[in-house]
Amino acid sequence: MNLLLLDPGEVHADGRARLTGRRADHLRTVLRVAPGQAVRAGVVGGLRGTAIVESADARAVEIRVHCEEPPPPRPRVDLLLAVPRPKVLKRLWAQLAAVGVGRVFLANAAKVERMYFDTHVLDPVFFRDRLLEGLEQAGDTGLPEVSVHRRLKVLIEDDLALLCPDHIRLVADPANRTRIGDALRGVGERTRVLLAVGPEGGWTDHERALLARHGFAPVAAGARVLRTDTACIALLALVHDALGTPSRVPALRPADGRIAQ
Amino acid sequence: MNLLLLDPGEVHADGRARLTGRRADHLRTVLRVAPGQAVRAGVVGGLRGTAIVESADARAVEIRVHCEEPPPPRPRVDLLLAVPRPKVLKRLWAQLAAVGVGRVFLANAAKVERMYFDTHVLDPVFFRDRLLEGLEQAGDTGLPEVSVHRRLKVLIEDDLALLCPDHIRLVADPANRTRIGDALRGVGERTRVLLAVGPEGGWTDHERALLARHGFAPVAAGARVLRTDTACIALLALVHDALGTPSRVPALRPADGRIAQ
Repeated sequence: MNLLLLDPGEVHADGRARLTGRRADHLRTVLRVAPGQAVRAGVVGGLRGTAIVESADARAVEIRVHCEEPPPPRPRVDLLLAVPRPKVLKRLWAQLAAVGVGRVFLANAAKVERMYFDTHVLDPVFFRDRLLEGLEQAGDTGLPEVSVHRRLKVLIEDDLALLCPDHIRLVADPANRTRIGDALRGVGERTRVLLAVGPEGGWTDHERALLARHGFAPVAAGARVLRTDTACIALLALVHDALGTPSRVPALRPADGRIAQ
Repeated sequence: MNLLLLDPGEVHADGRARLTGRRADHLRTVLRVAPGQAVRAGVVGGLRGTAIVESADARAVEIRVHCEEPPPPRPRVDLLLAVPRPKVLKRLWAQLAAVGVGRVFLANAAKVERMYFDTHVLDPVFFRDRLLEGLEQAGDTGLPEVSVHRRLKVLIEDDLALLCPDHIRLVADPANRTRIGDALRGVGERTRVLLAVGPEGGWTDHERALLARHGFAPVAAGARVLRTDTACIALLALVHDALGTPSRVPALRPADGRIAQ
């Protein structure tokens, strides 16, 4: 936890908040905070700054939050992901939020098993906590938006025109040799990318043609067949790198009151 | 499992092998193989090809292996990794083998807790199985070499000169802005890279100076603070991309007898 995240609704007008549960336990037992101590903090969807501990006992940790620092810019890449196996998706949520993604479209595909849609890993109550965990790790406050699309055709043919009107559209394709850095060479500083990642069995020819008709350019997904979670991280890292994010966004420097892992 | 991996010692001179345990279960219950069916197979440290199922029952699956296809080239990147938390390292093994790494040096550092060295995740019997799992996923047969170094100074000052004499040495540094692609621009086709990734608390100034004195050039690790396993995958993907691996190595094409996930 590099950033203590608070929901807007739990911070009072004077900046005070009373924490119980997981975060309070972490502050008390891992960080062993004492009154007066500062930790990095942020408000979900809002600013970052510092929380000063006012009291800490077995019942609760009381803090006062001062947040005036903007969060990192919204990640310039969105992900269209064929719903992976629940075990893989479970692991992926926090990592997606940590690596940085603006929006996640979870989509059906011919090789996605129907039961994948009926698991708790697609329950917003479940995945929101996992996403927050990733943001706490990465020091961000911007929760990725998530939507589930049971009809790939409708998503591609109808919805994306509204949701991603100006995005550069890429689809990861193990058979392709175009490097992501080459595909995105010279794009503008505000350009957003929509990256499509297929199911572990791959897209069907029909789906591939649908994506091609709607402007998804195939890019190399590397020579090795990776598990979906590993592939997503590798591909998102390449897109972020190609968009120049590492060289433009100032790193979040751990402050004195840094929250240890 | 995209490749059924066999130990050299379990394949008889006529290519026959008798499988029990995890792989036999997978062949029978997930792939539901029948006599005559072909699956992609390979020999650890050796060639890839096909295994024809000769018989399959509750006791064992008998196959005959024909391997004549070379494995992918040895990954051109080695990893010097400060030993991460056991929970993180446990997850990382398979992913390292899948993404592709030639050798892993697990090293001590000031911010590595001593207890990390005494866990089963550093036991070769444990991590070999995890590495094989990653190779099965990626379709490779080349097991990464792994060594554990309790004295970082000895590793850097003495051992690396022999172990990595001609490598380009990089160290991931959240404070740096040099992109990996820029650092590796124009390197030769046979160049190997040694990438150092520090502990989650970071290297100390002393360790950073030690690395700098021994030729490790700092490169950007991205603007976001990532968990060690996520960071390793992202960084290795960037190194592989910069070395041009995706555009030179033919992808392993799933054959008809492809082993499903």
